[in-house]
Amino acid sequence: MSRGIFITFEGPEGAGKTTVLHKLGEVLTDIGYQVVITREPGGIPISEQIREVILNKDNTVMDGRTEALLYAAARRQHLVEKVMPALDRGVIVLCDRFIDSSLAYQGHARGLSIDEVYKMNQFAIAGVMPDLTIYFDIDPALGLQRVHSNQEREVNRLDMEELQFHEKVREGYQIIMERFRERFYIVDAAQPLDIVVDTTKRKVIEFIKERIQ
Amino acid sequence: MSRGIFITFEGPEGAGKTTVLHKLGEVLTDIGYQVVITREPGGIPISEQIREVILNKDNTVMDGRTEALLYAAARRQHLVEKVMPALDRGVIVLCDRFIDSSLAYQGHARGLSIDEVYKMNQFAIAGVMPDLTIYFDIDPALGLQRVHSNQEREVNRLDMEELQFHEKVREGYQIIMERFRERFYIVDAAQPLDIVVDTTKRKVIEFIKERIQ
Repeated sequence: MSRGIFITFEGPEGAGKTTVLHKLGEVLTDIGYQVVITREPGGIPISEQIREVILNKDNTVMDGRTEALLYAAARRQHLVEKVMPALDRGVIVLCDRFIDSSLAYQGHARGLSIDEVYKMNQFAIAGVMPDLTIYFDIDPALGLQRVHSNQEREVNRLDMEELQFHEKVREGYQIIMERFRERFYIVDAAQPLDIVVDTTKRKVIEFIKERIQ
Repeated sequence: MSRGIFITFEGPEGAGKTTVLHKLGEVLTDIGYQVVITREPGGIPISEQIREVILNKDNTVMDGRTEALLYAAARRQHLVEKVMPALDRGVIVLCDRFIDSSLAYQGHARGLSIDEVYKMNQFAIAGVMPDLTIYFDIDPALGLQRVHSNQEREVNRLDMEELQFHEKVREGYQIIMERFRERFYIVDAAQPLDIVVDTTKRKVIEFIKERIQ
């Protein structure tokens, strides 16, 4: 393999994608593949510093476009320092969230425009798009229920707002998947975890084998 | 005036643009105009935090695109918090460097591509382009001589590299001015300072009067 395989994991909160990603990483490693598991900012000092600016609670007046540019800057540095070198070594890179999260969350749910956020992110990624993106689909109400499952309490107004926001996120992902149909593989994340892991595993191994041949 | 006037000052180091900008600000204020003088990051906390990441000496591995995205993020926040509110109040905003500096320095001199940096910056400025840009033109060798004029020493290898870089910057500005001809006014900055100030003053006052009528 002269170039590795870049696989991203996308979906709303509570879909279980992070859990599945780590289990898949173990499975692929056991089979004998070289795997790098990562997520932005991925321990890259420059990206971590950028993330600190984004998450700084004093920065209440941060404009949505400023935030999207900062995410793209952190993405660029993580890509240059971690993802691209791994791909150059022929490694399989499993990345928890990537450009599609910016499109769904900032582009659609926050109302900036998917097209504009996509074009701006092209500057950041300079052609390095995922080879395959696994989308973990779940009803936002069920996803939120999973996120909050440790807390025994009634659904309040904030939860309802949160639910509406997550419905917008899912709508965003649906628009993106229409657009990049050939890159996406959709997994029904409402199923039991072992089935979700198994479905993902079969798809990814099939994809890798096709690529290597 | 329902919207102010946005005037940017551009040019290589040593052209004297900052000095001229402040003198012009005094002149316009004396005439009775409301003026805001600024430069990025302009005291905006979020933009200052971003600037700290850019200038952090430990960040030696910062990619050129990461840097350009960070400059655009700082630009966006300065625009939203300082420039746009001033323009909404009908004020004349004099800004020391803006998008054209990114195009000339990062786009051309650092080799990222003027077109790509321009498109990415469109996301940051979202249509807020300068009404007028004054370009202070100077031979890079003379500009550097002015910058170094306090230091009595011979020209060394680093100065020569610096000179080549500044020649690229000037070349970048020339390409940009070809493209945005109608927005630029070029001042020959090799002339004595009082003549440079006077030329700039006459042009700006003429421009403001045309706009107000």
